[in-house]
Amino acid sequence: MSSFRISRRLVLSTLAALPALHAWPLPASAQAQAADPLPSWKGGRAKQSILDFVAAVTREGSPDFVPPPERIATFDNDGTLWVEQPMYTQLAFALDRVAALAPQHPAWKDKQPFKAVRERDMKALAESGERGMLELIMATHADMTTAEFEKIVSDWLATARHPRFQRPYTELIYQPMLELLTCLRANGFQTFIVSGGGIEFMRPWTESVYGVPPERVVGSSIKTRFEMRDGTPVLFRLPQVNFIDDKAGKPAGINEHIGRRPIAAFGNSDGDLEMLQWTTLAGNRRRLGLIVHHTDAEREYAYDRRSHFGRLDTALDAAAVNGWTVVSMKDDWTEIFPTSIGRAIK
Amino acid sequence: MSSFRISRRLVLSTLAALPALHAWPLPASAQAQAADPLPSWKGGRAKQSILDFVAAVTREGSPDFVPPPERIATFDNDGTLWVEQPMYTQLAFALDRVAALAPQHPAWKDKQPFKAVRERDMKALAESGERGMLELIMATHADMTTAEFEKIVSDWLATARHPRFQRPYTELIYQPMLELLTCLRANGFQTFIVSGGGIEFMRPWTESVYGVPPERVVGSSIKTRFEMRDGTPVLFRLPQVNFIDDKAGKPAGINEHIGRRPIAAFGNSDGDLEMLQWTTLAGNRRRLGLIVHHTDAEREYAYDRRSHFGRLDTALDAAAVNGWTVVSMKDDWTEIFPTSIGRAIK
Repeated sequence: MSSFRISRRLVLSTLAALPALHAWPLPASAQAQAADPLPSWKGGRAKQSILDFVAAVTREGSPDFVPPPERIATFDNDGTLWVEQPMYTQLAFALDRVAALAPQHPAWKDKQPFKAVRERDMKALAESGERGMLELIMATHADMTTAEFEKIVSDWLATARHPRFQRPYTELIYQPMLELLTCLRANGFQTFIVSGGGIEFMRPWTESVYGVPPERVVGSSIKTRFEMRDGTPVLFRLPQVNFIDDKAGKPAGINEHIGRRPIAAFGNSDGDLEMLQWTTLAGNRRRLGLIVHHTDAEREYAYDRRSHFGRLDTALDAAAVNGWTVVSMKDDWTEIFPTSIGRAIK
Repeated sequence: MSSFRISRRLVLSTLAALPALHAWPLPASAQAQAADPLPSWKGGRAKQSILDFVAAVTREGSPDFVPPPERIATFDNDGTLWVEQPMYTQLAFALDRVAALAPQHPAWKDKQPFKAVRERDMKALAESGERGMLELIMATHADMTTAEFEKIVSDWLATARHPRFQRPYTELIYQPMLELLTCLRANGFQTFIVSGGGIEFMRPWTESVYGVPPERVVGSSIKTRFEMRDGTPVLFRLPQVNFIDDKAGKPAGINEHIGRRPIAAFGNSDGDLEMLQWTTLAGNRRRLGLIVHHTDAEREYAYDRRSHFGRLDTALDAAAVNGWTVVSMKDDWTEIFPTSIGRAIK
């Protein structure tokens, strides 16, 4: 069963690379799948809102038609494309780094958020928010070159396992969202990630996992300094915040990196509110705003207004006011992860 | 004659959009041009170094082969793609804005660099450097939304004329560099602009003029603030530097925006030194570094080590040491601008 699902994903990825879906001589089984670009989405309002939007903006002559270069879609990452409970994956990475580096930093003992890490006080950690997480990351992940950091991230992801699902984090991605990314790209969209997470934490793996290349990843960052070392150029990571790509930072990050306003945006928390506003409330064009609502405690997690990570409160109210699609993971998705690990492991 | 050249440019642009150059049924004249992708480049070392590089990195099975997603080429703008004398175009724009706004700002009277603007003291202005120019830009171009700024830039470019050539600035672009951009894209490269100039000053026109879309433009920027105004989201431009994409800032800007190291970089001044180092001195792969040397006082300008704008001094020395291609505009280019206006107007 799981090999069938992996195979379907490969087929979909391949389709995305084709300029003209319909003209290609596909095997019959692939054609059947191409007929439904979102096979893990149950029929219903959420799925239909996506299909209607894609059809409207890609139909030449339609009043809603959007030329391909302007088909920009932005996706939050934590909680929208991959799991963010029981804590942000990047925080789990940071905790492991703190543990590894603590012996060299006695001053961390009584200082937050390091104290919370040492005491495994997840509540205090969560309360420090994405900004607190960034502080932790700066303190633990700076003072090295970008190449060194990339290697540390890749090595960690190759061995780290999620505490509940006991799988690599890069497998705890949402199958329906993979199908959505693929469907949009097959329809001429450029798909970008716009995340509060660290840009350099995501780039080593977003291309192989999501099909999103480094130049289409927007995220939080620390400053870097160019240096020539023995004739070799390096970028050295400094313990200084450069940019926080969260909440009101997301439209600024989109503007700085992409320079065009998206016509579709996908998020799951209050951190995505301003990105959804920026994308959908411009007035002159058909837009799609979508929120993934975590409603499935059995297969994944159920949380919203009171969660420490990925709180969804004001953005949920705004969704009702602004006509954004709200996806219930429990009711709208037949699958959560690319294989049945969610159900199998629980 | 000029209509022929425009037509050739159109042909080249069209070719760039085709995935397989050779398979397309071209008219005979276009085929002859396709045979030489750089018709405005005289045969010689500079042209050959480009053609050899492109052939090597695109030939499958070659030890120098680079997969298309990693074919990143970065171009400086001022003095590399368009004219930067007698001053940076963006500075000319800023001066016009200062003149327009001065009555509302009495404090500018005795304050640099505004004093220099009022007194048309170009030497003092030039000495303030790109950072001084950015200050001027912040003071004159902030306190408005990104949409308002885009309109001001577009309106100005539609009417402003270069003082010597009496043509719109967007026509004072280098025909051989247009051919190079097109040739690289036809060979699977992504072409990026990485300029010390303002990112929002370039984006309104780089797509139509160079074929470089907004998301592939990297530049200096000021901070923006997201606001909801009567239910409409805006990004408001703040008078605070966000990032200076010049000198050692260029590798940092490339890393932040693109997230991959280029395999080819094109510049013309000391501001491009670190970008060229970052691109070419990584060691493990064939790279191309190229410097446009302004040697043609008759058709354009001749300047290098002592110029206030676009000084080329340490980077020229570094070119000899590192094997970067140095292009003499006088000797290597048969044409300068897309039409013969340079020669006609002089």
